Amino acid sequence: MPVFPEENRDGSPIDSNEERMINFQTSPDQYKHWKLNVAGPVATLTMDVSEDVTLGEGYKLKLNSYDLGVDIELADAIQRLRFEHPQVKAVVITSLKPRIFCAGANIYMLGTSSHAFKVNFCKFTNETRCAIEDDSRHSGRRYLAALNGTASGGGYELAIACDEIYLVDDGNSAISLPEVPLLGVLPGTGGLTRLVDKRKVRRDRADVFSTLAEGLKGKRAKEWGLIDGYFPTSKFQESIDARVREIVGTDGAQQPSIGITLNPLQVEVKPAGLEYKYVNLVLNREQRYADLTMRGPEADQPILPEEIQRLGDAYWPLQAYRELDHALLHLRVNEPEIGLVCVRTEGVTDNVLAVDKTLEANKDDWLIREIVLYMARVLRRLDLTAKSFFAIVEPGSCFAGNLLELLLASDRSYMLNNPDEQVEITVGGLNSEALPMSNGLTRLQSRFLAAPEKVEEILARSGAFDTKAADEAGLITFAPDDLDWEDEIRVAIEERTSLSPDALTGMEASLRFAGPETMDTKIYGRLTAWQNWIFQRPNAVGPEGALTNYGKPTQAHFDFKRT
Amino acid sequence: MPVFPEENRDGSPIDSNEERMINFQTSPDQYKHWKLNVAGPVATLTMDVSEDVTLGEGYKLKLNSYDLGVDIELADAIQRLRFEHPQVKAVVITSLKPRIFCAGANIYMLGTSSHAFKVNFCKFTNETRCAIEDDSRHSGRRYLAALNGTASGGGYELAIACDEIYLVDDGNSAISLPEVPLLGVLPGTGGLTRLVDKRKVRRDRADVFSTLAEGLKGKRAKEWGLIDGYFPTSKFQESIDARVREIVGTDGAQQPSIGITLNPLQVEVKPAGLEYKYVNLVLNREQRYADLTMRGPEADQPILPEEIQRLGDAYWPLQAYRELDHALLHLRVNEPEIGLVCVRTEGVTDNVLAVDKTLEANKDDWLIREIVLYMARVLRRLDLTAKSFFAIVEPGSCFAGNLLELLLASDRSYMLNNPDEQVEITVGGLNSEALPMSNGLTRLQSRFLAAPEKVEEILARSGAFDTKAADEAGLITFAPDDLDWEDEIRVAIEERTSLSPDALTGMEASLRFAGPETMDTKIYGRLTAWQNWIFQRPNAVGPEGALTNYGKPTQAHFDFKRT
Repeated sequence: MPVFPEENRDGSPIDSNEERMINFQTSPDQYKHWKLNVAGPVATLTMDVSEDVTLGEGYKLKLNSYDLGVDIELADAIQRLRFEHPQVKAVVITSLKPRIFCAGANIYMLGTSSHAFKVNFCKFTNETRCAIEDDSRHSGRRYLAALNGTASGGGYELAIACDEIYLVDDGNSAISLPEVPLLGVLPGTGGLTRLVDKRKVRRDRADVFSTLAEGLKGKRAKEWGLIDGYFPTSKFQESIDARVREIVGTDGAQQPSIGITLNPLQVEVKPAGLEYKYVNLVLNREQRYADLTMRGPEADQPILPEEIQRLGDAYWPLQAYRELDHALLHLRVNEPEIGLVCVRTEGVTDNVLAVDKTLEANKDDWLIREIVLYMARVLRRLDLTAKSFFAIVEPGSCFAGNLLELLLASDRSYMLNNPDEQVEITVGGLNSEALPMSNGLTRLQSRFLAAPEKVEEILARSGAFDTKAADEAGLITFAPDDLDWEDEIRVAIEERTSLSPDALTGMEASLRFAGPETMDTKIYGRLTAWQNWIFQRPNAVGPEGALTNYGKPTQAHFDFKRT
Repeated sequence: MPVFPEENRDGSPIDSNEERMINFQTSPDQYKHWKLNVAGPVATLTMDVSEDVTLGEGYKLKLNSYDLGVDIELADAIQRLRFEHPQVKAVVITSLKPRIFCAGANIYMLGTSSHAFKVNFCKFTNETRCAIEDDSRHSGRRYLAALNGTASGGGYELAIACDEIYLVDDGNSAISLPEVPLLGVLPGTGGLTRLVDKRKVRRDRADVFSTLAEGLKGKRAKEWGLIDGYFPTSKFQESIDARVREIVGTDGAQQPSIGITLNPLQVEVKPAGLEYKYVNLVLNREQRYADLTMRGPEADQPILPEEIQRLGDAYWPLQAYRELDHALLHLRVNEPEIGLVCVRTEGVTDNVLAVDKTLEANKDDWLIREIVLYMARVLRRLDLTAKSFFAIVEPGSCFAGNLLELLLASDRSYMLNNPDEQVEITVGGLNSEALPMSNGLTRLQSRFLAAPEKVEEILARSGAFDTKAADEAGLITFAPDDLDWEDEIRVAIEERTSLSPDALTGMEASLRFAGPETMDTKIYGRLTAWQNWIFQRPNAVGPEGALTNYGKPTQAHFDFKRT
């Protein structure tokens, strides 16, 4: 299992007695594998992977292959483009290595990683690609994959997440998805789905391409719709530049940057959890569950975009959701045995609703738009996290507006039924459409598939739902009374954490996403499930499996039974 | 691996030197587990599983639990209802066992079966359930699950495939999906998906229900939308009867049966394959591929519904597709090592097109409707078969109309390019909408997602496509010329059969179903993939797994890492 030291907030390495953890925080000045260059409306993200800077041991990141550490930098760069460089209109992703764009996920890293790590690695990688597409779709930045060398496997999967793909025509460079023929696994980080669903490549051509280890070069790749153009080496850079100029227009260069800075999150790492300003994570490792509490905003939140811009990343929605995002990633990768997360909120409902109102009123402001889009991505990260989530609603909580989504995203909710205390949940502006799930529906729509009219009724209600009203409206699962409360929660936790973690993962993946499917849900639900299956099969990871034997003098031997 | 002797066409058991095979043919007089009773417009299908009549050894089918043999009878019964008893308007599925409707798939059978068998078993079971829904949707028969006892696991999954579910309220009988809490696997034969997508049960309630081993009884089950009603024991039968009368009306009882008889298929079992009248299957076991040839119809096909009715199951479309269906099931379960099927056709194009024309012209006739719906189901069975399919188009072939679907369903197609010979493919009436895939699109629509206008162009063309035209229209994958033909086919077969069978299964499942998703594709693509994954995990099938230890004094122990 790859490990990486995380620093304490004072910059000192954490106590060596503590388990070492993968660190999801980085910034351009710390990048080891990417260079982010911003010039007016054009950003260039250049991949130049340092072979020896790996998250784990026993492999080198040759040929711009990547491990999770490389992808954490890419995710950070895309996030910073949106917040720190909003004037950027075109993002060129290219390579500094000669004749190679990117060789995909490092095979030796995959071969030596645990199953749980492989699965979480692929999920994060695909979330990063979805973030590129989210930026393109909602914020209008255009991503160009400038393949100045061969893009294979995850390298081509990264390209296919971009809006446009251009390949150098040097008689050698090709695009390929060699996973099936060389490794006995899938291009499972979106590759197969994006091939037929995004680029709509004909299925028989997709079949040929995905079984052809050497891939295709410019002419045929263009003919089959796998790339958008190809240029000879001597004209490659100028052709890319010309296309970029077409996108950004002539006046773009004049726009000054108006971005905000994403400062490092301040997080106190404790033996039993993480403490942020607005998020508190307590790990009950023995019992295999975590308590995650989100604190609502203070009363004095800014109302005007200029004020929010000045406040920057300290503005509650941005800071709180950045902290939640970080906590979720930490839980996924660094705390694999935690099977259940009990989600609570703490704070003043009106303050949350005031923030919702501000975000709604200013949704055309670039920063507000980016903040809301980011909140939506974090909530989708929660939907896609392979842990059970129970929302616990008690006095003093503030499940309202955007924070109500935490409850709606949970597998179940428990709301205290005690008429002597104020226990409430409240709908806000952001529940109506701003925070969609991967299936394109809001969480309220997904919840009430059987009775869509209820969504409007609930959204139309002004004022809070007390426990009885919430139960009657179908917003919560259980409403135990005061006497049973503690026992019921305790038993629910014990029961949940005793179940097979695999069965729960498969069950939750099926029940969370009812209704329509999108490219994203197809990738996470169908392709990922198949890849997970294949990642377990002896034909891939057994002693004679293709992944195990890749690059060795030994050959793979298959059990040829088709299932 | 369960085995079952198949008889030769003369009724004698096959040579004991040959591998014994699972027999997919049966008929009501041979049923061991079901009773099919038809009275005018009402059919009753009663489950009464014979404990000792099993396909494999080492388990007993207690409590109306089932193995593949039980489901083969159910599939046969539903098929016969459609063809032999078309006057039936309501089908009641119930049990003869006291206090138990059906306990689902037999756990000990699952625990002792190979992975490949489990997966194919679940697929067939779900296809049978989809056949119930297909009958309900397209032929208007209403299916009622009359649960006169507990329905658990696959028992409730069978019920949820019906249109209406009624449970006896005897203080004891319940519905449940205990797979997750008891076995560490999923209700993966459609259960989870039908719960939230068909019955649209709220996701948190679905979560509670799917983790509750004892399930729910009448009142709450109704409240949560899991059943449609419940009646006390004393009123159960009369309540079901009353509901049935509502459905069939008063005049239904008068209608005479006008069905045709589905006679046993005549199939000659040879060491290297199966020979039917219109289908020939040659197994190249050493090279792990099969040659499957479908013969087109003779010239003298009937044109009028009355003539077709008289011809019955000897009418080409019905007989040829019944043979194809049987060959596909045989390949799946009895020939697991065959990884590739080379599909050919043989016959006269005009004869195939004439059949298409007859079927189209009489689509409102009950028998023609049933025949076309069945052809569609067989082709979907092909789409869902975990083998690679290559269509091979040579002189003398008749890939036209309905048989063109075989080519469009294949992962690739090879069409000989030899101007000196007549090599053609032709579009017919049935290519336009009659034979949809599970994703709701026709195979032409799925093929041309990137250019939907091409579908209309192709459908509008009168006359055949020669190789050049077919290639230009995008209908075929490769068009090797005469000199390369044999080498190219040989190399393609060798390459395909050398690849990891698991990676191919996952790849094909992803590439075959681009575009929209339906409940069916969600079940086969998402739920099945997760179930396959879980079926491989040590937490289910390892020495300490839940499936392995079910019913033993030993306890399951989990690796609690969530992935």
